[in-house]
Amino acid sequence: MSLREAVRDDVPRLLQLLAEDQISDQRDDPNGDLTPYLAAFDAIDADPNNTTYVWEQDGEIVGCFQLTFLPGLLQRGGWRAQVESVRTDRRFRGRKIGEQMMAEAVKMSRARGCWQVQLTTNKDRRDAHRFYRRLGFVASHEGMKLKL
Amino acid sequence: MSLREAVRDDVPRLLQLLAEDQISDQRDDPNGDLTPYLAAFDAIDADPNNTTYVWEQDGEIVGCFQLTFLPGLLQRGGWRAQVESVRTDRRFRGRKIGEQMMAEAVKMSRARGCWQVQLTTNKDRRDAHRFYRRLGFVASHEGMKLKL
Repeated sequence: MSLREAVRDDVPRLLQLLAEDQISDQRDDPNGDLTPYLAAFDAIDADPNNTTYVWEQDGEIVGCFQLTFLPGLLQRGGWRAQVESVRTDRRFRGRKIGEQMMAEAVKMSRARGCWQVQLTTNKDRRDAHRFYRRLGFVASHEGMKLKL
Repeated sequence: MSLREAVRDDVPRLLQLLAEDQISDQRDDPNGDLTPYLAAFDAIDADPNNTTYVWEQDGEIVGCFQLTFLPGLLQRGGWRAQVESVRTDRRFRGRKIGEQMMAEAVKMSRARGCWQVQLTTNKDRRDAHRFYRRLGFVASHEGMKLKL
């Protein structure tokens, strides 16, 4: 069991994981044209403040998340860490993979000197809210989205 | 009335605006040492996907926000736009400056081809929720924060 930075060859498997539990829009097809996804992967990969991580177990990718470090003026010019697209393979639920991934995300955010880790999670995902609360997250904000 | 990208010399005025209505931590002092804030401003300024904007009226900065473009794998590798640190000078409330700034943010996000504009706003800021709902934002997510 270990965390590593994703590489380009992981993109098809990442898309499977992401498609597995999309709650809202179903605009993604893991069996479709990879070109736009590879371009996005490259954009993330090229940014030193933005990384896709995968969690491997017995040589198989069973979890993933994206971690982004964001500069801001508030908090004495402090950096925030933002977590997106957290997924665990359905077959591996209940094995604390999410906990371990988030523990790593928090550890990396501390190492970067961030003052906060932030994320938004769909209001329908009640299990996710409990999960993040257990990790110490506080649901202090409304997560507002405007589709373009 | 016009929007422009902030420059380094705007940092003291930006800190005044940000300090004016900080709801939570009061770790910022607009009259303190500028060094960490200038470093943060430079980090934002150096990132082509991250910009601080100011709104001027009669040569005075009366509003600001930070706009960040974020790549992701979801939505066919689409980019999201994130708005942070939106402030309007108290003396200029009710003059639609917030509306005009957000209209510009949405316009820039569309021009960049983003599929979504996202932000989080403290659950205590009920006026802000109404404001963003009027602009079409949906409070579909919990905004979860972990202070480090």
